[in-house]
Amino acid sequence: MASLKNKLIALKNIHKEQYDLEVKYCNELIEVEKKYMNLLKPYWEKRADIISGKYDNEEEITKEEDDTEYPELNGLNNVHCKGIPDFWLTVMLHHPKISENITELDIKILSFLSDIRVEYLKENANFRLVFDFMQKSQKNEAVENIYFSNKSLYLSFYYTLDNTFGKAEYSHSYVEGTDIYWKNKNYVEEAVQNVCVTETGRELK
Amino acid sequence: MASLKNKLIALKNIHKEQYDLEVKYCNELIEVEKKYMNLLKPYWEKRADIISGKYDNEEEITKEEDDTEYPELNGLNNVHCKGIPDFWLTVMLHHPKISENITELDIKILSFLSDIRVEYLKENANFRLVFDFMQKSQKNEAVENIYFSNKSLYLSFYYTLDNTFGKAEYSHSYVEGTDIYWKNKNYVEEAVQNVCVTETGRELK
Repeated sequence: MASLKNKLIALKNIHKEQYDLEVKYCNELIEVEKKYMNLLKPYWEKRADIISGKYDNEEEITKEEDDTEYPELNGLNNVHCKGIPDFWLTVMLHHPKISENITELDIKILSFLSDIRVEYLKENANFRLVFDFMQKSQKNEAVENIYFSNKSLYLSFYYTLDNTFGKAEYSHSYVEGTDIYWKNKNYVEEAVQNVCVTETGRELK
Repeated sequence: MASLKNKLIALKNIHKEQYDLEVKYCNELIEVEKKYMNLLKPYWEKRADIISGKYDNEEEITKEEDDTEYPELNGLNNVHCKGIPDFWLTVMLHHPKISENITELDIKILSFLSDIRVEYLKENANFRLVFDFMQKSQKNEAVENIYFSNKSLYLSFYYTLDNTFGKAEYSHSYVEGTDIYWKNKNYVEEAVQNVCVTETGRELK
């Protein structure tokens, strides 16, 4: 009969072999995810083109045959404007978790937001969120983005292969944001003040 | 210029096409998961055989060449017993979340636990956890499982394809447990009482 020590070592060795398979499993899941992100890309691009107003003609926008399907949209039947202004701002304001973090100054800035999308980085599970901003308002071409000059802001999420619980998995490591090129430092101060007020307001609750 | 209504309907249609792709994506992820569960199965079986004592001879248990790698196990060098008694009970007692729910009666019962594994059910993401129990204690063949006669207890998890947040994903629907064939109703009462004491103890904390 083998000693208990040798049996436990045998289990540890099985676990090591399992680990290599789990790493392959993690990587294959990421490959499937990347594959479908690429397949979804054309849909996201078409959506972005409609929102920005690149596609805006009757011929480019497929008309709905059955006009009764979306009665809640009837009020917008005669509204004609460039693309769909404030689309992403509206989406964010309707999201329960995101909306509670949006300040008044954010609303002014997010009005210039034209697209949000996810892009995979080369390495494993790493990805970045891309936030595209316009320099002129969609609603009124005269209104300029007076806040910053970046065309896009990026938020990159980095992962490392983790073995903490004896199981191979990619766990979140750190986030990296873009430097923002503020046009006027006063707005940075306004933004910081705004955040402080909100934080204090929360603490007082 | 198309009306805002028609543009929003165009977005809804893009979303519908995206949804079909997302369903395919969910199903492909499950296929990858099932594939790797099958690849991992031989490792789990070998582990179960060592734990139960099916493989117990010096020839079946690979001896470690480098005897210094696991000095923490040296105390077990001369311990010889059938398989690895109380393996799963020990694992569960070392898990922070699980251990806090284990009562004294559970410890008595879990001493008869010989294997835990996951098995996929036919449909999509549905799976079950299998808990194999011995009828005689591994440590002492004379000690009988006086609690229940089931050889295995199953906990099945069912999922449904969900579209609540406009995104296709399998979300957890319900759990189904096995009927337990208690050998003696007194133990059921003891178990229920035990749970009640624990719950009250927690409330008093």
